[in-house]
Amino acid sequence: MPFSGMPDFLIQVPEGDSRERRVCATCGYVDYQNPKVVVGSVVSQDGRVLLCRRAIEPRRGFWTLPAGYLELGETVEEGARREAFEEAEADIAIDGILAVYSISRIGQVQVIFRALFADPEHPSFTPGPESAEVALFAWEDIPWHQIAFPSVHWALAAWRAAQGRALAAPAGNPPLDPRGVAPLRAEVGGL
Amino acid sequence: MPFSGMPDFLIQVPEGDSRERRVCATCGYVDYQNPKVVVGSVVSQDGRVLLCRRAIEPRRGFWTLPAGYLELGETVEEGARREAFEEAEADIAIDGILAVYSISRIGQVQVIFRALFADPEHPSFTPGPESAEVALFAWEDIPWHQIAFPSVHWALAAWRAAQGRALAAPAGNPPLDPRGVAPLRAEVGGL
Repeated sequence: MPFSGMPDFLIQVPEGDSRERRVCATCGYVDYQNPKVVVGSVVSQDGRVLLCRRAIEPRRGFWTLPAGYLELGETVEEGARREAFEEAEADIAIDGILAVYSISRIGQVQVIFRALFADPEHPSFTPGPESAEVALFAWEDIPWHQIAFPSVHWALAAWRAAQGRALAAPAGNPPLDPRGVAPLRAEVGGL
Repeated sequence: MPFSGMPDFLIQVPEGDSRERRVCATCGYVDYQNPKVVVGSVVSQDGRVLLCRRAIEPRRGFWTLPAGYLELGETVEEGARREAFEEAEADIAIDGILAVYSISRIGQVQVIFRALFADPEHPSFTPGPESAEVALFAWEDIPWHQIAFPSVHWALAAWRAAQGRALAAPAGNPPLDPRGVAPLRAEVGGL
């Protein structure tokens, strides 16, 4: 079915809320909109970093990191691994959290990891459907004038600055506390 | 207007997508759902940590950190400061990123900061509308059996483990790269 238009939303503050939200004029459905999480990785091999040349808009033809929107049901590191596979068919191993960038004007939070190839003896990569080309670049060979997004510059600089330094690991779905506190689903709607 | 029901959504894979999404049967609107970001802080003063006793469900009466959903237009650290003010009327200064927790089964990514009071000489706090009580606890006095959510345990343990250690700062809307690359709004839909 083609997208034929937007539902008829009103801008209202729902009961018990303090902010304006989009509310359907017909049924009262509250369309909560929150920032989205982008997950990505600086994947390196022998000091060279993996970049993907975009085959799609925006910034088609420019180089970027394997990165994209986190999906429901994924941890941040699962999402970063999926994106590396989708965009570069690379099987990566997350090493730690390199940076957290807020790009508030467009409602994004980017969680960027440092990663290696899962099998560093046989690093393998090839363009996925959204990439025209995938390559490993030595630092001095990075195509700085053909980088797709500012945050790619920031992440590469953060990677360079963190070389030789241990990074914190992300924590994903840790087990229940031995004290036997509330089940994880108590988190729903909470905090 | 009361919430009188859900729009009539079909589950379909939109053109150019690879996942099933909710699509309005009437107008074709694609209701993308992604994980939400929770931001919160372990705020401390002289080794004691700030906890809030919940005045609302879920887990009413249990203790939690000041934390909540990131809103559009906020950086992660702005969101964490807002939540500390809303829940404890505390003006805090973010010190660094303590942890990133994925709770994928409920579609949450939690970014938890270490923080101090903005004016440590005169720390001030009082319950906001969602808190019944707010207090500073020495480690051995924390009400471990009355903690609201598992991630509060994890964050407190991470805070304890990170004592005396420098943490990475979050980066929020860094300025454009001096090389003059694409404007930030090129990030929209990208990566």
